[in-house]
Amino acid sequence: MNLTHIEHLGIAVKSLETAISYYENILGLTCYAVEEVAEQKVKTAFFKVGQTKIELLESTDPEGPVGKFIEKKGEGVHHIAFAVEGLQETLDLIAERGVTLIDKSPRKGAEGLNIAFLHPKSTFGVLTELCENPTK
Amino acid sequence: MNLTHIEHLGIAVKSLETAISYYENILGLTCYAVEEVAEQKVKTAFFKVGQTKIELLESTDPEGPVGKFIEKKGEGVHHIAFAVEGLQETLDLIAERGVTLIDKSPRKGAEGLNIAFLHPKSTFGVLTELCENPTK
Repeated sequence: MNLTHIEHLGIAVKSLETAISYYENILGLTCYAVEEVAEQKVKTAFFKVGQTKIELLESTDPEGPVGKFIEKKGEGVHHIAFAVEGLQETLDLIAERGVTLIDKSPRKGAEGLNIAFLHPKSTFGVLTELCENPTK
Repeated sequence: MNLTHIEHLGIAVKSLETAISYYENILGLTCYAVEEVAEQKVKTAFFKVGQTKIELLESTDPEGPVGKFIEKKGEGVHHIAFAVEGLQETLDLIAERGVTLIDKSPRKGAEGLNIAFLHPKSTFGVLTELCENPTK
C-alpha cells in the first residue's frame, strides 16, 4: 500500500458562487475549473494548493449525496481523497483487512482519475476516496 | 497572501488508540508522534502523507472544543490548516476583507508552529487554521 499524498479535499458548500469568491478573493487561490458531475448531482469548482486540490461541491439536488450531507451536518469537509499507486490491489487489501468498500472496483472520477470510496463507518467518520492517475 | 500547501488536517476521533490502528494497519501510514495539548483539551497523534500531516484529535474533556464537535457532528474532519508565509500580515489582510478571526495575532501551536484560526462562520463551515514555520 502506498498513499503518496492527499490528492484533494471535497468540501460541501451551499453556493458555489459565493464559496468560489471566498477562496479566490480572501484566500488568494485560483479556481481553474468548474464542472458539473450529473451522476453525483453536484457542480464542482477546483483550486490547487501545493500537492492538493480543493474541490468545492454544490448539490444540484437535495436528494443527492452532498445535499443530504449539508442537511445533516451543514457545510464543511465532505471527503478526503488520497492518491495511491495500485488502486485495485489496494482495494483488495483493504477489504481483506475488514474495511467496508463503497466501490469494490475503481470507477472513473473527475479529471480522468480512477477512483473508489471507502465507507465512513469503517474510516472513523471520514468519507475516504482513493485515486489513481491511470496515465502515470 | 501566499498559501503554499495544506500543512495538516485535524480529524476528531472518539478513540485515539483505535483510530491510530486504522491509519497504521489499514492505510499503511506511520504515527510519528503522540502529544497531549492540555490547553486544547486534546490528545493528538501525527501522521505524514506527502506534504500534509494528519492530526488525529481525541478530546480529554467533553466540554473541550473537540468533545463538543463530536457531540454535534460526530467523528470527522475538524479543521484544515494551510501553511502560509507572513502570518501576521495575512491575518491583517483577511480581517480587512471582512473575515472574522478567532486569533487576531499568531499563537504557539503544536510542533513549534505559529498558528491562528479563522472563524468557520466566515469560511463556509470549514474551521480554518493558518500556520507559519518560524524557523523558515
